[in-house]
Amino acid sequence: MPDPIPRPITRLIEEFGRLPTIGPKTAQRLAFFLLRAPAAQVAALGAAVTGLREHVVTCARCGNYADQDPCSICCDPTRDQQLLCVVEDPLDLLAIERSGGFNGVYHVLHGVIAPLDGVGPDELNLSALAQRVRREGLREVIVATNASIEGDATAAYINGLLEADSLVVSRLARGLARGGDIEYVDAATIAMALEGRSRVADDWPSGV
Amino acid sequence: MPDPIPRPITRLIEEFGRLPTIGPKTAQRLAFFLLRAPAAQVAALGAAVTGLREHVVTCARCGNYADQDPCSICCDPTRDQQLLCVVEDPLDLLAIERSGGFNGVYHVLHGVIAPLDGVGPDELNLSALAQRVRREGLREVIVATNASIEGDATAAYINGLLEADSLVVSRLARGLARGGDIEYVDAATIAMALEGRSRVADDWPSGV
Repeated sequence: MPDPIPRPITRLIEEFGRLPTIGPKTAQRLAFFLLRAPAAQVAALGAAVTGLREHVVTCARCGNYADQDPCSICCDPTRDQQLLCVVEDPLDLLAIERSGGFNGVYHVLHGVIAPLDGVGPDELNLSALAQRVRREGLREVIVATNASIEGDATAAYINGLLEADSLVVSRLARGLARGGDIEYVDAATIAMALEGRSRVADDWPSGV
Repeated sequence: MPDPIPRPITRLIEEFGRLPTIGPKTAQRLAFFLLRAPAAQVAALGAAVTGLREHVVTCARCGNYADQDPCSICCDPTRDQQLLCVVEDPLDLLAIERSGGFNGVYHVLHGVIAPLDGVGPDELNLSALAQRVRREGLREVIVATNASIEGDATAAYINGLLEADSLVVSRLARGLARGGDIEYVDAATIAMALEGRSRVADDWPSGV
């Protein structure tokens, strides 16, 4: 029998269903929620979606999403402009910024080297990275890609790409997350935490 | 430190976060997905949200969402117009329609009697229901509200509201869902399934 849902509703259900983590049931629930929501809320959501790309730019220097080019981080004179942190995507940048432990500048790759997915160095923001190192006299490049096989491979590639006498290329420490119970930590992480152990001193742990 | 996310992005994250089942992390993930998605997909989602209320009407007879008033179900001459199924919301109507087991017409309450939430009979589409019974010469009213305390209370209220010699007011059967393992069924449902048991005959179960 013909489906009794009006086309504008099925269209919205389809569009919601194309979003990550939104399955058919949730898409249906969201569409019917909006049918009963105040008109102002529906209008606000529609305007926020439509206006997303109109007012967001990509910083030509670091690749992050911003409302100005260059972005406020790149333009900030109080930041350490010779210390660079390379990340896979803007959400990683956000997490690092919110940690409060970094005062340098960033470079967003918008991805990671993943040969099985057809993503090689040319598909990432990597040539711009090499140019920045030459042009900006960087002191250290922290490769803060994820602690995964692809993240490690990308770090190795960057290390080979940027090899120079005066440049330090570093990687974030591996180990236990704060609050974690060793009993539930995976074997590889425990092995790395053992390997990277450091002496207990009067001022350790710092800042924890 | 100031949050480095441009305002158009935080606005979209806020709007996504107002939707049911969408928490802050998912809202963030959706917004950043749309930043990388093809412009056509973002535009399609925005248009589907904005156009939702422009082209959807409520059927004055049954209360369902439709693209015409009265809706296609109410106008369908092949349907049993004296058999009415009362539901809480359009998603329940949809589920019953898709079951293929109902050829009557519907009445959508857009809610259920829930005193603790301040929802009484006046907040629902109930006076219209009483009018339909008088006007349309209904033979039977199936109260297909949910099998919950509120659904049962609403059914009892409707039964009192529509009491008439020639009108049958019925409720959907309780029992085991198809494919269910008795070991995992809750006690109340098992008790109801025992109470509602029926004799095994040559033609049972029908249509299963």
